[in-house]
Amino acid sequence: MADEPATDILDATYRALCEHGYANLTLRDIAAETDKSKASIHYYYDSKDELFVAFLDELYEQFTDRVGTHDGDTARERLETLFQVLLTTDADSSRREFRTAMLELKAQAPYNPPLRERLIEFDEFLFEQLREILSAGVHAGEFDGSVDPARHAEFLTTAITGAQTRHVVIDHSSARLYGTMTGYLERQLLADENSEVAQ
Amino acid sequence: MADEPATDILDATYRALCEHGYANLTLRDIAAETDKSKASIHYYYDSKDELFVAFLDELYEQFTDRVGTHDGDTARERLETLFQVLLTTDADSSRREFRTAMLELKAQAPYNPPLRERLIEFDEFLFEQLREILSAGVHAGEFDGSVDPARHAEFLTTAITGAQTRHVVIDHSSARLYGTMTGYLERQLLADENSEVAQ
Repeated sequence: MADEPATDILDATYRALCEHGYANLTLRDIAAETDKSKASIHYYYDSKDELFVAFLDELYEQFTDRVGTHDGDTARERLETLFQVLLTTDADSSRREFRTAMLELKAQAPYNPPLRERLIEFDEFLFEQLREILSAGVHAGEFDGSVDPARHAEFLTTAITGAQTRHVVIDHSSARLYGTMTGYLERQLLADENSEVAQ
Repeated sequence: MADEPATDILDATYRALCEHGYANLTLRDIAAETDKSKASIHYYYDSKDELFVAFLDELYEQFTDRVGTHDGDTARERLETLFQVLLTTDADSSRREFRTAMLELKAQAPYNPPLRERLIEFDEFLFEQLREILSAGVHAGEFDGSVDPARHAEFLTTAITGAQTRHVVIDHSSARLYGTMTGYLERQLLADENSEVAQ
């Protein structure tokens, strides 16, 4: 983002979101994370809604960078990297707070069409990435020939969404959820000769 | 629930939740759905938090009734009934509004330990039901002998949670999500001789 003050505001939005959550967040809270006044934030964004649409656009850029560059030589490795990026939180507790705020934001989607539109883009991007990796894996003979990339991508998108929800809501460890997803990969996707796991 | 006025209040809570969502819901909104004053609701519940804990306890009773009595002669039929109960919304649009409000509520779990405790109970009950059905299906030879009931139940709990989240957030049709789940059942669980789906 070329515009420096706007970037400052979006960075401040991230910090304020982690600290206060979404529901009760005000432009004043965001201003408190910058050297700007609430009025100068209003110069850039008319409302909290408008600011959050810009915030999600910025997040989407970061998301496609992170999720689109899944390192790995094989489809399996690329899928594991993707699960890791999406599910593990490392030691960084602000990631966890951020995911909580994102779940609040998601729950607002039915009331807020521009917000929903953005969230659909995240979902579709993830689905496409998964489909592409699955398809590459099948063509390389690494995944079982019976794997239907679109069908499995749909299912994995759903399961990843559920893992993120359960991580926030019932505090399931992200390591456990990562294990669940890689277990699926090993049991359901790998061609027999590549499978290391006894059923 | 034997206490009539308290039941009235919880019924009113359901209606108010569907109408206003959770984040901005006040005791006044709930009172407006009854013939009671806000003060008389305070007689029963000190705060919105306390009311919602009672509300979730009541919902849990209904949930265990609905999810615990999955009709069907076979494990497969029982699982399909369970998916149907959990994922389809029929023509009842209030179910959809209710699910939206529940997602808002879930996003509050990290800030509200008594709420989280209740939500964990829902999650655990679902996991146990799934494990029991999977285990019965394996013992009956209906599901593949390689199916590990606990591991698959964990995965299905995650996927069902994700289906509910996606239904609310990106407005995926519940029929499509139901199809995704029954597809998993057909591809991954059924013993070969019971499978009707060509891979």
